[in-house]
Amino acid sequence: MNPLEQRRKFRFQEESSTTSGMCDNYLQANMIILPQEYAFDFLLFCMRNSKSCPVVDVLEPGVTRPQIADADIRTDLPKYRIFRNGKFTEEVKDIRSVWQEDFVTFLIGCSFTFEKALLEDGMSLLHQEQKKVVPMYNTNIPCKEAGQFKGSMVVSMRALKPEEVEQAVQITEKFQTSHGGPVHIGNPKEIGIEDLSAPDYGEPVEFNEESRIPVFWGCGVTPQNVCLQAKPEIMIAHSPGHMLITDQLEEK
Amino acid sequence: MNPLEQRRKFRFQEESSTTSGMCDNYLQANMIILPQEYAFDFLLFCMRNSKSCPVVDVLEPGVTRPQIADADIRTDLPKYRIFRNGKFTEEVKDIRSVWQEDFVTFLIGCSFTFEKALLEDGMSLLHQEQKKVVPMYNTNIPCKEAGQFKGSMVVSMRALKPEEVEQAVQITEKFQTSHGGPVHIGNPKEIGIEDLSAPDYGEPVEFNEESRIPVFWGCGVTPQNVCLQAKPEIMIAHSPGHMLITDQLEEK
Repeated sequence: MNPLEQRRKFRFQEESSTTSGMCDNYLQANMIILPQEYAFDFLLFCMRNSKSCPVVDVLEPGVTRPQIADADIRTDLPKYRIFRNGKFTEEVKDIRSVWQEDFVTFLIGCSFTFEKALLEDGMSLLHQEQKKVVPMYNTNIPCKEAGQFKGSMVVSMRALKPEEVEQAVQITEKFQTSHGGPVHIGNPKEIGIEDLSAPDYGEPVEFNEESRIPVFWGCGVTPQNVCLQAKPEIMIAHSPGHMLITDQLEEK
Repeated sequence: MNPLEQRRKFRFQEESSTTSGMCDNYLQANMIILPQEYAFDFLLFCMRNSKSCPVVDVLEPGVTRPQIADADIRTDLPKYRIFRNGKFTEEVKDIRSVWQEDFVTFLIGCSFTFEKALLEDGMSLLHQEQKKVVPMYNTNIPCKEAGQFKGSMVVSMRALKPEEVEQAVQITEKFQTSHGGPVHIGNPKEIGIEDLSAPDYGEPVEFNEESRIPVFWGCGVTPQNVCLQAKPEIMIAHSPGHMLITDQLEEK
């Protein structure tokens, strides 16, 4: 299915599943929507933390169509989460009823984009095989502050065979708009993750710790995490793992 | 002289000359100061036009010390230009008396940074030999719009020997925070420049058109040009050719 057809499925609520593995070769994006008063600080935050927050498009106040997708961002993602005053309040499939003319939309690169390249190189991605949303974790890696935005990095994890790790680093480093290379390899405790079987976002993935090494990449849930600490009166994000599929082919 | 010593000369108004050729190996930066209400649109403009506006630092509202230089941006540049409602009103050596707590400062990469690399490769830079501010020109190359900011690219010109051009392209492409490779080589009329001897900014440089080819790079005066069209009630910039010398070594 091409991106336009897939987005229509979401728009008409015929599907609402994770976009992991969908529309190979097309860039997928995390989405954050904030009122205009937060827009400068947040854009600056993304620039200062480009590894976890690589900006791929910004929609000016009130604009609903991205430059990189013939889409309406109010309807064309499978699921959205609405947060009020820093608290999650509801998960919806359409945000037209809460749309405000001062909303600024940020699209941020996503690690799904490089997954295809890993698969093509012969690696097995366990979360796809187990039909799970990729597991994501809060860490103790600090982000650089900008205005009222501060917090720690969120990472996504893929458990790879030892002999695959070096190659995975080399492949993902080429995807600068999709978080680039890993931020950590191996012992999760070193970056403040106590229990891999209890992810903070997404779903746990089963793997044999004897034969696989956990590899961690910066994750677009980071800005969601950081925004919540600023407690905006309203913020809307994609649901973890449920991205905007763009019309833009991946860049390597 | 190291950057701190050189900036002190400017601070105490012992010198106020162009910074071209000063403090080799250290990044120099263009500066634009705008009231906070323009900050989001302008940062977005820079992101969308990174070739002419590569952001190297942003100082949040009221902040006077950059992250990349132990400096006070109100005193440590050799000369400033103040613009009110889109018109140049005065050139000064100190902006403390007009400073506002809502001022946001943008530092933008500068082509001076790559000049050292060209010199080291054995090229002669005529404006340095002739002790001129590098000549800069308005062009017909459109920038991508962002909010209220729109306009055309400003370029700097260096006339090179034909056998130097390819090497100059290769060298400058490595300097991504200093405009990268040229945006045009050869005939100036193709980008809307009628007369090389009448630059819009900087000073004319004499060269033999039989033996040298004009090469054009994106220039940090671009945002200055674009800001004037938005007519902010106040904007402050470095005087053309009179940059902030930072403490950061050039990155290639």
